[in-house]
Amino acid sequence: MDRTAKLTPKGEATRRRIIAGAAQQLRDFGVADTTLDDVRARTSTSKSQLFHYFPGGREELLLAVARYEAERVLTDQDPYLSELTSWAAWGRWRDAVIARYRAQGPNCPLAALMSQVRQTQGAGEVTTVLLAQWADKLAAGVVAMQRLGKVRTGLDPRRTAQAIVALIQGGVAVLMATGRIDHLEAAMDLALNYLRSQAPGSRR
Amino acid sequence: MDRTAKLTPKGEATRRRIIAGAAQQLRDFGVADTTLDDVRARTSTSKSQLFHYFPGGREELLLAVARYEAERVLTDQDPYLSELTSWAAWGRWRDAVIARYRAQGPNCPLAALMSQVRQTQGAGEVTTVLLAQWADKLAAGVVAMQRLGKVRTGLDPRRTAQAIVALIQGGVAVLMATGRIDHLEAAMDLALNYLRSQAPGSRR
Repeated sequence: MDRTAKLTPKGEATRRRIIAGAAQQLRDFGVADTTLDDVRARTSTSKSQLFHYFPGGREELLLAVARYEAERVLTDQDPYLSELTSWAAWGRWRDAVIARYRAQGPNCPLAALMSQVRQTQGAGEVTTVLLAQWADKLAAGVVAMQRLGKVRTGLDPRRTAQAIVALIQGGVAVLMATGRIDHLEAAMDLALNYLRSQAPGSRR
Repeated sequence: MDRTAKLTPKGEATRRRIIAGAAQQLRDFGVADTTLDDVRARTSTSKSQLFHYFPGGREELLLAVARYEAERVLTDQDPYLSELTSWAAWGRWRDAVIARYRAQGPNCPLAALMSQVRQTQGAGEVTTVLLAQWADKLAAGVVAMQRLGKVRTGLDPRRTAQAIVALIQGGVAVLMATGRIDHLEAAMDLALNYLRSQAPGSRR
């Protein structure tokens, strides 16, 4: 990350282009079957260029792609995830999440990457940051509904958001293990029904 | 599994003893660092004995241990999981699940095993069967609460059970990735609060 800060805007753009190309290569062919030469060919990059941007080699590139895929998890849910200001918006967000994971199927590119870079310094941070940002956005959505008077103010937005992030992870874990998406659908419906049940004046 | 059917009761007991010993060895030292010789030493088994019970060698043994660990996931939740017949019982079950995963920490033996045997025939079935049995037991708990008049009969027990299984998986996935158990706690509280909100005569 420090190294990125030193790049020129043009250098940063090239680095970003290599990461995006590598990400697509990994999505198409899998982490195990992709070499640095494959990435070079896909992104029209010389060996020296690749090592200029990723002096740590394959591990550093994979970690950068993992960060990129983690960002995509969130941007794939936008604009819905950032505008959870009505029940209709929550419903659209739910549909977007289901559609994303249905399209992705049992092969999660981020999970595949994380299994490869788990020992790399900074790897744990990728997941932690992603989950925290995800929970932040959902908590903002809960707060928005509280301000609109749709959800009781006694409900803890952070804890509720953490629970929703967890149940999405769980639905995706089941999808990856069994190829079935119905757990994810059921879990998201439970979350939304729960939120709706937390109207001001409800029993708890 | 067919082979198991042909074993004598004594043979079955020996096979079971090897699996239990191997499971403990794997829990103590990890899948990657455990050899068949380690398992032989731990279980006082000869090479020929080991191959009599696991002719497929290491892979077959690992898969058998994965099945054993999958069973343990459920038995660790008993007697609570099998007797979800009051809100107090649901609460005790929740506490038992949290305690189990808190004790286990970020290293899930079943996940470690599954990552090793993923390519082995029958591996996918282990997770699928575990999740289905888990959901069956939770669905039975929802039905019990419906019969007691505590939960409205319009709530789909199977779908609710699948959602709860998913959110536990998610909480555990976050625990494995970040070492934090609060997502699991939040997710289980959400599930239980949701169920309690589904009283007969509630708005939905």
